[in-house]
Amino acid sequence: MVDFEEKRDTLLETIEEMLRQKQYASLRSTLNDLEPADIASLFEDLPEEALPLLFRILPKEPAAEVFVELEPEQQEMLIRGFSNTELKEVLDELYLDDAVDIVEEMPANVVKRILKHADPETRKQINEILKYPEDSAGSLMTTEILDLKRTMTVADAFKRIRRTAADMETISVCYVTDEQRHLLGVVTIRTLLLAEEEDVVGDLMDPNVISVNTLDDREEVAQMFSKYDFLVMPVVDAEGRLVGIVTVDDAIDVMEEEATEDIEKMAAMLPSDKPYLKTGIFETWKARIPWLLLLMVSATFTGQIIAGFENALAATAILTAYIPMLMDTGGNCGGQASVTVIRGISLDEIEFSDLPRVVWKEIRVGVICGATLAAANFLKIMLLDRMVFHNPINATIAFVICATMLLTVVCAKVIGCILPLLAKKMGFDPAVMSSPFITTLVDAVSLLIYFRFASLLLGI
Amino acid sequence: MVDFEEKRDTLLETIEEMLRQKQYASLRSTLNDLEPADIASLFEDLPEEALPLLFRILPKEPAAEVFVELEPEQQEMLIRGFSNTELKEVLDELYLDDAVDIVEEMPANVVKRILKHADPETRKQINEILKYPEDSAGSLMTTEILDLKRTMTVADAFKRIRRTAADMETISVCYVTDEQRHLLGVVTIRTLLLAEEEDVVGDLMDPNVISVNTLDDREEVAQMFSKYDFLVMPVVDAEGRLVGIVTVDDAIDVMEEEATEDIEKMAAMLPSDKPYLKTGIFETWKARIPWLLLLMVSATFTGQIIAGFENALAATAILTAYIPMLMDTGGNCGGQASVTVIRGISLDEIEFSDLPRVVWKEIRVGVICGATLAAANFLKIMLLDRMVFHNPINATIAFVICATMLLTVVCAKVIGCILPLLAKKMGFDPAVMSSPFITTLVDAVSLLIYFRFASLLLGI
Repeated sequence: MVDFEEKRDTLLETIEEMLRQKQYASLRSTLNDLEPADIASLFEDLPEEALPLLFRILPKEPAAEVFVELEPEQQEMLIRGFSNTELKEVLDELYLDDAVDIVEEMPANVVKRILKHADPETRKQINEILKYPEDSAGSLMTTEILDLKRTMTVADAFKRIRRTAADMETISVCYVTDEQRHLLGVVTIRTLLLAEEEDVVGDLMDPNVISVNTLDDREEVAQMFSKYDFLVMPVVDAEGRLVGIVTVDDAIDVMEEEATEDIEKMAAMLPSDKPYLKTGIFETWKARIPWLLLLMVSATFTGQIIAGFENALAATAILTAYIPMLMDTGGNCGGQASVTVIRGISLDEIEFSDLPRVVWKEIRVGVICGATLAAANFLKIMLLDRMVFHNPINATIAFVICATMLLTVVCAKVIGCILPLLAKKMGFDPAVMSSPFITTLVDAVSLLIYFRFASLLLGI
Repeated sequence: MVDFEEKRDTLLETIEEMLRQKQYASLRSTLNDLEPADIASLFEDLPEEALPLLFRILPKEPAAEVFVELEPEQQEMLIRGFSNTELKEVLDELYLDDAVDIVEEMPANVVKRILKHADPETRKQINEILKYPEDSAGSLMTTEILDLKRTMTVADAFKRIRRTAADMETISVCYVTDEQRHLLGVVTIRTLLLAEEEDVVGDLMDPNVISVNTLDDREEVAQMFSKYDFLVMPVVDAEGRLVGIVTVDDAIDVMEEEATEDIEKMAAMLPSDKPYLKTGIFETWKARIPWLLLLMVSATFTGQIIAGFENALAATAILTAYIPMLMDTGGNCGGQASVTVIRGISLDEIEFSDLPRVVWKEIRVGVICGATLAAANFLKIMLLDRMVFHNPINATIAFVICATMLLTVVCAKVIGCILPLLAKKMGFDPAVMSSPFITTLVDAVSLLIYFRFASLLLGI
């Protein structure tokens, strides 16, 4: 691997030295050898006041690509420093969907200036995309489309492709539309290259096009890229007219963001769309505290169960020492089941109609997991806790603990697999029904089972 | 969206009806209108004995694509039923990396038959790829590469592209190599289309090519696709010779698998590479039981801490009722911090050198989260537990509980953020240092704090 990370520090020093020595020509050629994403990552660690100069040193085309990769704060700083001509130049080089992403991050006065200096056609298209809801395919797409007509010959098609290719994010896939821009078919550049000059596009195209609607959820759109191995997905409006395309790089970003969101929700946090180190203390607090508070208050029930058995616990105090282990193991078992089911739902592998199969599977897994844990636990109690730690425990108490373990594990597995599916069915996000929430529930269940067995077998 | 899921059931019925009526022509045209991934998903729900017939009805090219999307068991069944000629036909249509994936899933005698009927060049290439470790870029790549020479004109290049395009997984990006196949540069099909026929490839190519090594980890390779927005990544050997390419669809699969693995590890499971509903009970048990056992045994320490304070607890029994809440909240706080840091490490946003910044941030977040929770808890105890439930509790005991809460939350946040970074530094997978593991640790810490405060303030 040409490892950028390894040479990063040396590069930073070289660039700072060149800036000091005003060696702008060598600076330009050093930057020119790098990928836009890497240049942007270097810019983040260089002195802020050098940024406008560095940016102006870059040739026009990579400059626009670097601009897209910068942090919103740096983009804003640059825009504020740009002359009107410079702003126009950068805007002309941007792909439309990137321009929209930038507009969405900027404060109102900067947006106004951007829209004022974009050419009228671009301005119209930016405003068009901004209309779509944030999580829709419409907000993800670009409206710069390579569309062909079915009567075109391959030679015509290539003429059109050559004329418009510079503005297109991708030319691998072309769509065929009629006069009203209805989507009729799809043809790849490969098919066109392998065809004869006089072949007609209408004969070459595949009329079965998978497309998404402007209002479809962007997570579903991303999932379709993964299912169909597409590089581009056409977006149509309610009348079936082609209004844009989503490219695979944007789908990848959505997949990563959605996986992060799922993971955050599973850990009882509100999702955040900023990288960890860039999030402020209070923002992090705001994302974490609601679930913590809710789960803390729910633990009251667990507490009340214990308070209700206070006398029994006082009589056989050693029972208390096994509460954490029973609760933790139950929580872990429930968490395993719920997280597996949540991920299965995300990847479209499990649906609500699978509920009976899932529950039946979890019951069986729960029984053998529970039996293994109970057996190991019995040995541990009798050999370690009794003989080594000299805890006041006998076989009956050990049996109470192990029977509780088995039943708790089975209940935890069942609760863990049912709740995410129920949440999904009721239109909530299944990821919320994960370990922390399930742990709180399973805690109460395990204590009820524990004290019930204790009263039955120990007569307390 | 042309929603395949909605018409799935109707399609299944239609196909079964056509099979019964032996309407093979209409069956062929019905299947022809569908995407290969969708056909494969239908085949999974159709009677197994119809599969060979259905497969033979498909035209040759989609048939190969459908074959790739089928489950390994179905692939095996089909291969066993194929005549030698049929097997050869399917193999000839497969892309090399797909053929390798299939070979990796098949039992030895089927592999032998596949290799026997592949043409000698393909056989050699399959064996070549099989040599690479499972998680390496080499095992992910295909060796069918569109390589150009720097002295070629654009017209020559297009001649070569047209001649080889049919066998290539992608033609969007072409690589330029010398006689020894050293990677010299990259040129996109777009650049070639926009150039003049007599331009020379060497002048058009970009000599700064990002590439990966055959032995690089496939997760890092996938991460680079996301960073650089690539469609194709060239793979070179130790001498810098181009040996293959990785395409973006395979990178997406890796990203999804790695996210699933991370999530599984975070929930204390060993990662599995099969979909949930296809995994057997004992396989699921094997993936879940090791961590459950380990975490159960670790909870012994927590139990011993309680056993040590048995007398104090017997004296002020109400203290026991708050143990679950303190432990759960501590576990949730630690889980939030660890999961955030683990995801940050996966996405290359956080490195070990960020440790001081991360710890400092978590301390501050911990203090304000802890203070909020302690305050809410104090109110809850005094208003709900005391006045409504009539628990025998006073302001001093409430203060012990809330002070423990604050300190536990801060400790949990710090433990939660340090352990994944330490694991990463020591070469372990950070995902293992997540909620279940941290919960067990935090349980012990919170109890120690609790009993210490209780002895100090309540004199027990």
